[in-house]
Parts: sequence; C-alpha cells; structure tokens
Amino acid sequence: MNYKDYIASIDNYPIEGVIFRDITPLMQNGEAFKSACDELTDFAKEVGATVVVGPESRGFIFGCPVASNLSIGFIPVRKPNKLPRKTVSIKYDLEYGSNELHMHADSIHKGDKVLIIDDLLATGGTVDATIKLVEGMGGEVVGCGFLIELTDLKGRELLKNYRVKALMKY
Amino acid sequence: MNYKDYIASIDNYPIEGVIFRDITPLMQNGEAFKSACDELTDFAKEVGATVVVGPESRGFIFGCPVASNLSIGFIPVRKPNKLPRKTVSIKYDLEYGSNELHMHADSIHKGDKVLIIDDLLATGGTVDATIKLVEGMGGEVVGCGFLIELTDLKGRELLKNYRVKALMKY
Repeated sequence: MNYKDYIASIDNYPIEGVIFRDITPLMQNGEAFKSACDELTDFAKEVGATVVVGPESRGFIFGCPVASNLSIGFIPVRKPNKLPRKTVSIKYDLEYGSNELHMHADSIHKGDKVLIIDDLLATGGTVDATIKLVEGMGGEVVGCGFLIELTDLKGRELLKNYRVKALMKY
Repeated sequence: MNYKDYIASIDNYPIEGVIFRDITPLMQNGEAFKSACDELTDFAKEVGATVVVGPESRGFIFGCPVASNLSIGFIPVRKPNKLPRKTVSIKYDLEYGSNELHMHADSIHKGDKVLIIDDLLATGGTVDATIKLVEGMGGEVVGCGFLIELTDLKGRELLKNYRVKALMKY
C-alpha cells in the first residue's frame, strides 16, 4: 500500500518553514489504517515485544492497536499532571519548543521487551527520552516503530543501537 | 472478566473530593486490554458502525483498536491548535473546568454511522459535545461506548436518545 496517498502535507504549519505531515486522512481510511497497524504488529512480533510503549497522544493511535492485536500491554508516556500515581520523568528539547514526559514508576519491569511506537520520527527527541525512561526502569528496548520518518532531521542517528522501522519516509 | 480488578482508584485526584479511576493497570495487562477492546468491537458491529470517533487522548486508547479490528476509519476529536486543516469546533463545560473540541471539517460525511468511544462517561459533557459536532456534519451517531460509567454523575441522561454501552460502572 502506498501510504503517502493518505498523508496531507501542510506548508508552514505549525510554524513558518515546516511542512506538517497530517496523518488524519490515513486514520480515516479503514483499509489504510488497518494496514499500517498490521505492519507495525508484524514488526512487534519480529522483535519479540512483550509490551508496547507510546507517547501521548499520537503514539496511542498506532500503539494501542498493536498491543491489542498481540494481547500485550500498552504503557502510555504522558505530559506532566496526567498520570495520577508516582511517576518517573524526563525533560528534553523538541523540534520546536521543549517537553517533559512522564511514565508511571511501576509501569516497566526488568525483563520487559519494549517496542516504542509513535507516529513520527523527526529529530528523535521524544523517542530518545522515552528510551531513557524505559531503560531507567530496567526494560529492554527491542524496537522503535513509526508511521513516518523525516530523514533530513536525522533522528535515526540517535537510534543507531536500536531496531527501527518506519512505514514511510519523507 | 472483572475489569474492576485492573482499575486503580485514587482518592482526591485531580481535586479534593474526586475519586479518580486510573485505567493504566488495565491497559498494562495484555489480556484485560484486549478483552476490553474486543467487547467494544462487538458493540461496534452490533450497532453497524462505519466509523469510530474518539476524543483526545484517552478516546484514542480504545477507539483505535476498535477501528483497526473492523477495518473502519478512526476520526480524532482534538483540543485547539492540534488539527492542521479547517475544523469545526464547540465549547462546553467539564466535570472540572471547561473545554473546546475540534474535528476536521471534512472528517464526517452524510450517511456515516458513527460510534463514539471514550474511556469514561462522567457528566457526559465531552460525548454530548462530540455528538453535536458529528451530527452538525451530517453523521448519524449509532452508539457511544465507554470503558467506565460514573453513574452518580448521570451522563446517561444526556444520551437517552442513543445506544450506550459501558464495560463497568462505579
């Protein structure tokens, strides 16, 4: 399937000079959405994931179907003040602005084989921060799966020690 | 399955006097998460849904697996400044505070049979606002599915003209 047929490219959004890749037309098309979820599910099987971790909120869109397909757990990575119990957290720089991510402190256990899923690999800041949280709790990151990779931003260099899959590249 | 075994109840969160029902232990348990997604998928089939609509961000957690399971589209309902193209929007009051929701203006078409999915039915403000957006674009709301219903808050009264399913009640 040519997933790019279902991506809307928006010039100068959210800021001047950026081309925003809008995934909502893909999500809206039942066949394209299922196909993307299934490809990421196959990747999860291939790397032997025992749990899926996804950053709020677009990481939920593909990560939750993968977890449900394989009857494995899904662990959300969230912005501050969203998780009600004790968390671990990390601050990092984004493509535009900065961010702080939290996970419940009891969410990952030693021996967990973690697949991180997000919609977009840009500079890699979000996934790198997520890896640090997961590894800090004793989890093993067995792969990182994305719908889209923006190759010019070289996020993959940050992930050179990990298996990475992206369903399309710009 | 007794889903309540996987819900953490947090007293006085996010404000004094509220018991927060934390769904992350359920999401984290592969069998419980899959079972909940499958029950909501069965409801989607029963009501003949042709598209799933879910509010950011916890509506994505159960709505996306349902859409993927049935090879039907998923349409996100998002907070301001998250959707890059032309939107329709609505403001409404929440259990605590107020909110504004947006959907892409071309996301729903006349004849679409829409299942709205969210994690929680409380006062019903979010789902009621979502129904107004969907119906305003010509969609037919064939059902509303929730993981949890807080019965004291009487959200179901707002939904008396719709089919409603909740997997557990408090």
